Amino acid sequence: MKGFASDNTATVHPEVLAAIGEANDGHATPYGDESWTARAEELLRKHFGDEAQPFLVFNGTAANVLCFRAMCRPWQSVICAQTAHINVDEGGAPENIAGVKLHAVPTPDGKLTPELVAPHVGDPAFEHAVQPRVVSISQTTELGTRYSLDELTEIAAFAHDHGMLLHIDGARLANAAAGLGVALRATATDAGVDALSFGATKNGLMSGEAVILLAPGLADGFRYLRKQTLQLASKARFFAAQFNALLEGDLWLRNAAHANAMATRLAAAIDGAAGVRVTQPVQSNAVFAVISPAAAELLQRDWYFYVWDASTGEVRWMCSWDTTADEVDAFAAAIRSACAASPAAGGA
Amino acid sequence: MKGFASDNTATVHPEVLAAIGEANDGHATPYGDESWTARAEELLRKHFGDEAQPFLVFNGTAANVLCFRAMCRPWQSVICAQTAHINVDEGGAPENIAGVKLHAVPTPDGKLTPELVAPHVGDPAFEHAVQPRVVSISQTTELGTRYSLDELTEIAAFAHDHGMLLHIDGARLANAAAGLGVALRATATDAGVDALSFGATKNGLMSGEAVILLAPGLADGFRYLRKQTLQLASKARFFAAQFNALLEGDLWLRNAAHANAMATRLAAAIDGAAGVRVTQPVQSNAVFAVISPAAAELLQRDWYFYVWDASTGEVRWMCSWDTTADEVDAFAAAIRSACAASPAAGGA
Amino acid sequence: MKGFASDNTATVHPEVLAAIGEANDGHATPYGDESWTARAEELLRKHFGDEAQPFLVFNGTAANVLCFRAMCRPWQSVICAQTAHINVDEGGAPENIAGVKLHAVPTPDGKLTPELVAPHVGDPAFEHAVQPRVVSISQTTELGTRYSLDELTEIAAFAHDHGMLLHIDGARLANAAAGLGVALRATATDAGVDALSFGATKNGLMSGEAVILLAPGLADGFRYLRKQTLQLASKARFFAAQFNALLEGDLWLRNAAHANAMATRLAAAIDGAAGVRVTQPVQSNAVFAVISPAAAELLQRDWYFYVWDASTGEVRWMCSWDTTADEVDAFAAAIRSACAASPAAGGA
Amino acid sequence: MKGFASDNTATVHPEVLAAIGEANDGHATPYGDESWTARAEELLRKHFGDEAQPFLVFNGTAANVLCFRAMCRPWQSVICAQTAHINVDEGGAPENIAGVKLHAVPTPDGKLTPELVAPHVGDPAFEHAVQPRVVSISQTTELGTRYSLDELTEIAAFAHDHGMLLHIDGARLANAAAGLGVALRATATDAGVDALSFGATKNGLMSGEAVILLAPGLADGFRYLRKQTLQLASKARFFAAQFNALLEGDLWLRNAAHANAMATRLAAAIDGAAGVRVTQPVQSNAVFAVISPAAAELLQRDWYFYVWDASTGEVRWMCSWDTTADEVDAFAAAIRSACAASPAAGGA
Repeated sequence: MKGFASDNTATVHPEVLAAIGEANDGHATPYGDESWTARAEELLRKHFGDEAQPFLVFNGTAANVLCFRAMCRPWQSVICAQTAHINVDEGGAPENIAGVKLHAVPTPDGKLTPELVAPHVGDPAFEHAVQPRVVSISQTTELGTRYSLDELTEIAAFAHDHGMLLHIDGARLANAAAGLGVALRATATDAGVDALSFGATKNGLMSGEAVILLAPGLADGFRYLRKQTLQLASKARFFAAQFNALLEGDLWLRNAAHANAMATRLAAAIDGAAGVRVTQPVQSNAVFAVISPAAAELLQRDWYFYVWDASTGEVRWMCSWDTTADEVDAFAAAIRSACAASPAAGGA
Repeated sequence: MKGFASDNTATVHPEVLAAIGEANDGHATPYGDESWTARAEELLRKHFGDEAQPFLVFNGTAANVLCFRAMCRPWQSVICAQTAHINVDEGGAPENIAGVKLHAVPTPDGKLTPELVAPHVGDPAFEHAVQPRVVSISQTTELGTRYSLDELTEIAAFAHDHGMLLHIDGARLANAAAGLGVALRATATDAGVDALSFGATKNGLMSGEAVILLAPGLADGFRYLRKQTLQLASKARFFAAQFNALLEGDLWLRNAAHANAMATRLAAAIDGAAGVRVTQPVQSNAVFAVISPAAAELLQRDWYFYVWDASTGEVRWMCSWDTTADEVDAFAAAIRSACAASPAAGGA
Repeated sequence: MKGFASDNTATVHPEVLAAIGEANDGHATPYGDESWTARAEELLRKHFGDEAQPFLVFNGTAANVLCFRAMCRPWQSVICAQTAHINVDEGGAPENIAGVKLHAVPTPDGKLTPELVAPHVGDPAFEHAVQPRVVSISQTTELGTRYSLDELTEIAAFAHDHGMLLHIDGARLANAAAGLGVALRATATDAGVDALSFGATKNGLMSGEAVILLAPGLADGFRYLRKQTLQLASKARFFAAQFNALLEGDLWLRNAAHANAMATRLAAAIDGAAGVRVTQPVQSNAVFAVISPAAAELLQRDWYFYVWDASTGEVRWMCSWDTTADEVDAFAAAIRSACAASPAAGGA
Repeated sequence: MKGFASDNTATVHPEVLAAIGEANDGHATPYGDESWTARAEELLRKHFGDEAQPFLVFNGTAANVLCFRAMCRPWQSVICAQTAHINVDEGGAPENIAGVKLHAVPTPDGKLTPELVAPHVGDPAFEHAVQPRVVSISQTTELGTRYSLDELTEIAAFAHDHGMLLHIDGARLANAAAGLGVALRATATDAGVDALSFGATKNGLMSGEAVILLAPGLADGFRYLRKQTLQLASKARFFAAQFNALLEGDLWLRNAAHANAMATRLAAAIDGAAGVRVTQPVQSNAVFAVISPAAAELLQRDWYFYVWDASTGEVRWMCSWDTTADEVDAFAAAIRSACAASPAAGGA
């Protein structure tokens, strides 16, 4: 059943699948000491800059946890948005596995600003409290919004001015770059980011994310840390090959741009529809909207998506690299029909 | 370059690769709430018994760490062989991620016995020491040896008699079952094992291991623990599909039996060769032998394998599901030739 | 310099000091296997009920961390007030040492209510999030407020109804009991509390707190946990003797009641003073008030106290067991004088 | 009941107790921001050198764990003697709280040597294993033996030559210095030690140990780490005052030298006694000997001491700062009598 639940319900892109098959050719040294992994690291440096130190891992939670383990000593902590994936969707791994406290900051749109972060800056003179060391932002955010390049530069500068590092949870960094119309490095290296979780699974891979370390020294000992943190694949070539398919040409961009375009198309198609209020700017591959519970229930009979906040009636519609225009159009028509039949109380 | 370095240098079995491709059909609920994962769990219960609670994870280190996290409270510890993978090859993950102390016991052949474990049994009256809770054995061992069913039953009984649980690191459990000529459950459930890391990557998968929890209560909360321990795959169907290819028919057995047969063939082919002393019984897919450093160096020019212990000259030759009889024969000839040219000092 | 900074600036009560000296009589088995510790445990059971399992530790952070380690498996978490000591003053120990995520809830007065806790109750069906297991409240709170017995019973029932346990950080539990005019057990055992950090250092000891475990099973293995968590004193008798001095008679109550009375006297003495606005009900040994920054600065020349919130001008004045009425009166006069000289902008 | 069980069964030295009482004079800033703590730190620098960074903690396990937390990143480990207190008597705290694996090395006398450590030196090229970062030795050892200054210098050089740091568990460092007839710094700073747990409880304090950090950079962030690791005393002056009593004059030396002398006296008094075989050189305040089980049982009716190894009949007799010559003589007579009555099989 296709739908608009998440970009990780999608299939693996055929070029990625083909790359896995092509890598299945003879023996290879395990744990990444082979040409596929070397090429993936080369491509990641090409995309993120020569100073980038890339490390492949299995999934996004692991990438985030490993970044924090590399960036923080035990007494240091992480400032993030209350809606951040690390705060609500990672099973307490940042606290339990990385040992870091999260300072969860309420935001209107999932985005941190210097103003929002400022009250959480640490006081080195106060030994009773953890010392914030990392500002962690999501690009794009959990709410589908996006930092502009200026906003990125500004928050990086703020972090550095206060002795902190900037981390990006980039599970959908490709969608951000595609939306901004810039290279990947513009959203990371060039903006002053210190460490990055670069997502690829949602953008067409079967499985694979990359930790990109940018600040000097962060990579010291990191390969031991990756092994210890359960993220060293034995048949690593099959993970690297997927990245190569994504990054050798422009597949990463095609996939992300398409997913974004589908969300834009969906938002346009329901614009002005009765009983639907889009709640966040559509800046990536997600549309957030408030509809009535009855309309949501009606729609969910035929379409797979999540109610984001049952208390407000907010729903999330997420497009993927393999979402088609026809599916968007059919879904938009269904939304219009369901919401007309069951308008929100008070008029959304 | 093919060789005899490790069973994780091998390729993915074509049936497994095909299963990944077949699973790439339309959208699917992420995180395992779909038919492929349900089938994998069903097959694992079929192989390990109705009481088995199976959970897929990315790799073997993770499977072991998760077993310990499920079995131990913070003050409890694990008794293992000094040569165990968890003690020497997992980057300190048992200690750092699971928080458990390992009591590493020297053994002649990688196998624990009640006699070897006995001195490490805990003393509940002594609050200053960790309390051993788990006996962890490897089946097959790091040295290619194998516990008999009687030995398994005996050590399980010993563990239980002393208030402990028995864990198997079964990275090569299939090789053990194939070698013993028994079903998988005979080496686990029927022998009284409480938790099991069931390896599949070395037996033909691209990536995937399973935690099999057998003792009552161990699975309580385990799915939260798997998520927190960075082991919940988003596009889980592609991992489950690999298990289904392995376990639906007898592929697990064909692969393991073949790898074992190749090791037996190799051992037979070098039997009596000058300058070669096989050091461990060949009971799975590995041959351990002492050859002279000069012979090892000569051989390694053309063949890929590891020196296991540089201080003794012991080498490890590991066969895989995709090792061919021709390769074994050619390698055996090369060994005979190299060792004749460079005999071990003192005559091995 | 005496002052109103904290109850841990105070001296050790002479009866406590004398008890330390009396315990210095001949050799004694270390680690608590002697009569002083046996008596302390007996007295703690007398005060908290036969079901109470008491364990002495060095300080309050340790008591809280140990409670969480006993109550939570790794995937479980703790709901607390945003102002809670565990959230802001314990160096990230709950997250880093106990491995638990804290859900920090904003409150007007430092007190959690079922309504405030309700949005944070866990969803067992959602494996991506930690599962809240403990509601942790402070009695008295960081803001000097106090839960009534009804409020305690109500929040305990709410926790239990939702599969959670109730923990009290009782660094000032004696002040609460004294203020409520009830026995210690009324604020803990009788109210349905499951685990308790019982503070004594602030109430006249040199050093010592107690973990009191009340729910069945929590004490299993706890003595190993205390040792591992760095809280087993070798010359334990000297810590136990302090508790015996406090609990054998009514010293705990005299000290706490006196400290409370001094805070009440202070609040009364500044009632209606220009430029002073008391911000929290005075229900224990603390007075919170907003005064102008200039007044605070003027006062701090002669008196030692903390500005609680520089952004609002809120200050904290804390009384101790050894605060005298004369000191309170002199301080009140100083406050009146300073605040008259430097009234708050807008009229506090 | 006095006896020879341990130096932590002893009393608090009267001068130490008096110092606690004298510190009980008026209010003082908590957490060590007062003159007693400043003086203790000054004295510790005087004894260990200007480069020494001293931090007071509650007990020895905490001191060791904190040293490892300061010295190791998560992927780094500690090499120690199998008999080390950190390996057998600290409840798994090094592994669970500091997250470090211990490489436990069998030794004849509790002492590590470069030869014994060499096989455990890490291989940075092997990412699958933890990387040893610390060599931890006990001075004096658990077996009462002592490193000479040359041995200390030699093992420090070995550690540094291999990219490691040297840690001393100095629970009885004063006994070592007294025995060697040197200043404290000769056994630490001057020998090239990088971090030190300096014990004081066994040498006459009620409670208190010190972490002494010597290598550059180790103290960065340490005060946050101490707080997080549950070791920041609120009424810190009463702990600092004890150190001041010990270190202001020569009390540390008098106590340690006396305890050592009593052990020497005991060893001399049983020299040549039938049925007694002293098993370790008497180099501090302990005598280890093998006697028959029957003799041990007979002796334990009147005297309190521990059987160290039931399998060999080895017992430990430990002298304290408050052991008297009369007690030693009476005990020696009792030993002679018991062992004559129950000689060891085979003649010890």
